[in-house]
Amino acid sequence: MSEYAAPLKDMQFVLRELVGIEQLLSLPGYADFDVEQLSAVLEQAATFAAEVLAPLNRVGDLQGARLENGEVVLPPGWAEAYRRYVADGWNGLASAPDWGGQGLPVLISAMTEEMWNSANMSFSLAPMLTHGATEALQIAASPELQQAYLPHMVRGGWMGTMNLTESQAGSDLAAVRCRAVPQADGTYRITGQKIFITYGDHTLAENIVHLVLARTPTAPAGVKGISLFLVPKFLLKDDGSVGARNDVRCVSLEHKLGIHASPTCVMAYGSQEQGDGAAAGALGWRVGEENRGLETMFIMMNAARFSVGVQGIGIAERAYQRARHYAQDRRQGADAAVRDGESVPIIRHPDVRRMLLTMKATTEAMRSLACVVAVATDLAQAAADSSARERARARAALLIPVVKGWCTESAVAVASLGVQVHGGMGFIEETGAAQHLRDARILPIYEGTTGIQAIDLVGRKILRDGGAAARDLSAEVAQTCADLEAATDPQLRAMALQMGPAIMALDTAVQYVLVNGRKDIRRALAGATPLLKLFGIVAGGWQLCRAALISAQRLTGGHGDDAFYRAKILTARFYADNILCEAASLAHAACAGSDAIVEYADDQV
Amino acid sequence: MSEYAAPLKDMQFVLRELVGIEQLLSLPGYADFDVEQLSAVLEQAATFAAEVLAPLNRVGDLQGARLENGEVVLPPGWAEAYRRYVADGWNGLASAPDWGGQGLPVLISAMTEEMWNSANMSFSLAPMLTHGATEALQIAASPELQQAYLPHMVRGGWMGTMNLTESQAGSDLAAVRCRAVPQADGTYRITGQKIFITYGDHTLAENIVHLVLARTPTAPAGVKGISLFLVPKFLLKDDGSVGARNDVRCVSLEHKLGIHASPTCVMAYGSQEQGDGAAAGALGWRVGEENRGLETMFIMMNAARFSVGVQGIGIAERAYQRARHYAQDRRQGADAAVRDGESVPIIRHPDVRRMLLTMKATTEAMRSLACVVAVATDLAQAAADSSARERARARAALLIPVVKGWCTESAVAVASLGVQVHGGMGFIEETGAAQHLRDARILPIYEGTTGIQAIDLVGRKILRDGGAAARDLSAEVAQTCADLEAATDPQLRAMALQMGPAIMALDTAVQYVLVNGRKDIRRALAGATPLLKLFGIVAGGWQLCRAALISAQRLTGGHGDDAFYRAKILTARFYADNILCEAASLAHAACAGSDAIVEYADDQV
Repeated sequence: MSEYAAPLKDMQFVLRELVGIEQLLSLPGYADFDVEQLSAVLEQAATFAAEVLAPLNRVGDLQGARLENGEVVLPPGWAEAYRRYVADGWNGLASAPDWGGQGLPVLISAMTEEMWNSANMSFSLAPMLTHGATEALQIAASPELQQAYLPHMVRGGWMGTMNLTESQAGSDLAAVRCRAVPQADGTYRITGQKIFITYGDHTLAENIVHLVLARTPTAPAGVKGISLFLVPKFLLKDDGSVGARNDVRCVSLEHKLGIHASPTCVMAYGSQEQGDGAAAGALGWRVGEENRGLETMFIMMNAARFSVGVQGIGIAERAYQRARHYAQDRRQGADAAVRDGESVPIIRHPDVRRMLLTMKATTEAMRSLACVVAVATDLAQAAADSSARERARARAALLIPVVKGWCTESAVAVASLGVQVHGGMGFIEETGAAQHLRDARILPIYEGTTGIQAIDLVGRKILRDGGAAARDLSAEVAQTCADLEAATDPQLRAMALQMGPAIMALDTAVQYVLVNGRKDIRRALAGATPLLKLFGIVAGGWQLCRAALISAQRLTGGHGDDAFYRAKILTARFYADNILCEAASLAHAACAGSDAIVEYADDQV
Repeated sequence: MSEYAAPLKDMQFVLRELVGIEQLLSLPGYADFDVEQLSAVLEQAATFAAEVLAPLNRVGDLQGARLENGEVVLPPGWAEAYRRYVADGWNGLASAPDWGGQGLPVLISAMTEEMWNSANMSFSLAPMLTHGATEALQIAASPELQQAYLPHMVRGGWMGTMNLTESQAGSDLAAVRCRAVPQADGTYRITGQKIFITYGDHTLAENIVHLVLARTPTAPAGVKGISLFLVPKFLLKDDGSVGARNDVRCVSLEHKLGIHASPTCVMAYGSQEQGDGAAAGALGWRVGEENRGLETMFIMMNAARFSVGVQGIGIAERAYQRARHYAQDRRQGADAAVRDGESVPIIRHPDVRRMLLTMKATTEAMRSLACVVAVATDLAQAAADSSARERARARAALLIPVVKGWCTESAVAVASLGVQVHGGMGFIEETGAAQHLRDARILPIYEGTTGIQAIDLVGRKILRDGGAAARDLSAEVAQTCADLEAATDPQLRAMALQMGPAIMALDTAVQYVLVNGRKDIRRALAGATPLLKLFGIVAGGWQLCRAALISAQRLTGGHGDDAFYRAKILTARFYADNILCEAASLAHAACAGSDAIVEYADDQV
């Protein structure tokens, strides 16, 4: 049995040495925090993840969520774990103090979210969705709605959901059909069916606040006719407390490959028969302006997409820990370099080491990249001057589809390697490695598939600003590469041999997008996914190279944990020679690889 | 619901145009067959796969195999399907006519095996294991054992299993502990426990013939003390018919990620209490010489490993068909090149096309490579002169770990893409795409993990002959590359731009293995898996390039299905610019990428 232990050493390195935390803590809004406090939060979170959430992971997978007599029943232990999660104050960690949140940097909530997901991804989805709904209300709801709902939701006593998808409207939200009919009193009656609603119903919380995309009767067709509505499971009494049941219910649960304990609901709005000419539908309140619901959703979705990327890191870390533990324990075969040797732990075998190092290096690259993006998100709000805020905003906007797309695709690959390290035992469910693969497989799909992230990257993040944010990033990576070239340690100079061509590959692929974006958008989009992966491996490798440069300095300084810093350098070296070296082929696929895609006849694909 | 239809068009192309079938059919042993007959067999197999096996795939996944009162119960329909499989004569397709087989080329059985696995992988494992056991008996059993067992097993009335693994002996068979004690009458008593025994028990067949690795009391330690034994579920009466139960039973079934309907058994030998001083253990007969059981197993395993590679092709083809069907059907979003367009089938979207073409090109590359290897296997037996036989044998030996390792790793990747094409629906079990991923995931593990295949490639297939077979292959690929360079069609010349560097990459990585094999075996082995993948993409790409050259000729000739031939050329072009282009980075990983793997401290991995 492999227990989960949060990777505090690496997180502390990222927090204290990699992301420039001093810069952030010097700003208004964060002046009350210091590094030791933030570090203490991480340690408490590590304990909570290991002691409360991780032990429920397997029972959640085995028993799953069930629909019984119209009620969603969660696995044993869920309710108590959520009660403790709320009681310990984890729900409002990064939320605004105005609504009862603790206002910690997104950086810290990213790290705690990683821990929750490593420990128990199915559980973690519940607060993640609540957080998304909270963000949407903060952005767009009326002061009355905010007052009535946000304090409860930030505390965690009430939870939230996001209701976007309908059976004909998945990636294409223009096809949303749910209806919202205005009533004389300013409320709306919502009717229709939503699918794939995560934690759409359950009894963990006193109330569930559904945010629902729907169309008013006068709405234009397409994306410009979609509004956002707040539809509570229980209506509020005049005193703000929870009252009568609203006309919304879960009518079925999906039977899924993974995250069995996270109820994926089909939600029916307005399913009740209405007598006496009463208006039919669930009672709802509009959030933000009519027909501008998608804009609000998109702002919120940026945060949600980032969180899904972090889920990928969480699963990858857990899969890596489990595989490493097994490889240290399992003895098979002798060391290849020892004649007639005894059998050794399989971690001694070069191919097993390759798999484990691939898992480790990828996970650390993802973590450091996500944390750098988290700090950019913080700076986009808090930086002192507007140009710094704008630059941070553009950096975060550029990299969020990368964090979402690349970290989740990599999470699937890492989880699959985790199965492989276990050999035949990996295919047996009791081992636990297979669950990580099954759970991970949704990550490149929900909150926008990898293909959708890639379109976002190409369209909104590269073409829209003429490649400015991408060039800005590339120039910074080039500076790191120059630092590597100037280093005395030959390991660092060896990394530069891969980083240099990788930057050129990235620049080439971005240029290809800029040229074809004007000329032939299909060719630009045909290369979007390899471009996204290229961005990921370069940006992630950049952080590992920065970590290696810092580690080399520390080793020279002669203070700290030398073995840790030497491993950091070797991890970057491994990454450079085994992962970053893919850059040129990804660029080729993104450019030349697109031709055949466009030229193929539909009926021959 | 996506139905399975065997890819007869591509198979016919491979059969008639790619593999040089005339050469094979001109040889003694095959002179009775002609291409039309072989082609008719494929058509009949396609019908059987679609009508009998495919309809049972989902019920098999849902209900799985169960152990009830000590008996393995298979899903509804299994028994009748197997009865028809035997009655229609599919079991002995490629077996020796001496034992009642039809003696068809391995090429044809490879294609039918692909179909069985596309239709229903769990079912297909039963005859696959029987075939493996049949091979072992043909190689090494005494004439008496052959006479008693082979006719039944070739017909399919009796089935076979392979019992290698024990809990402490997975990849490392040196650790086998099962005991075989010789009796005065020449038989043995077998005791011990085997795990992961596919179709270890069931009632499909009148008898089950277990081939079991065990040690005699005087056996030396390690791999040189393992013998092979035949242990029937039911002992034979004097007249050769099925008699009393032997002391072997299935004591539990594994709960697995996939292939739910294929019972994976823990088998106990000699579990019965013995009174009155009777010898304990299951009654067994030695197959081949004492202490040389592994040699027999290895000969047989080559065939089994090839078959597992073919399973990968089957799953990949099925996943591709399902995804293509969905993409043709599902409408989401407008064409990116059309302003305010209607929603279109998602197959119009460039990124979905990229996924589908990756699935298609990979699957066709795998199929054509496996079929070329199948013909080499046939020629290794049947070619007229000994040098031709030896060359074919060396080619097949070199490529079998590649077919096993690369086709199975690629099958997982293709099945995962199949899930991705479906978006959220892919994560829902009812859709069927997730089952292919779950089923596929065992393929890179059983019959020797990818890491084991890579060690086989490096150790037995490259180092042992000083790289001769690898150089022989590389020279042939270079000839195809020269043909591409000389072509008039610019598409073909574009492929050469990728194939040329890919050959150099392969040669470099092989040279690295040859140098380090002598100097530092750990460094050679650390690069073994990327080298195997490099071999796969080059050898598979080679076949697609050959197919493109043939297709260009046919198009010039102006006869045949032009759309098919043009698609063949585009598929090769897509492969060259999106997959073959990975060659350089794989070679870099196989060489430079090994350094960090060796240098890492165990406690920092």
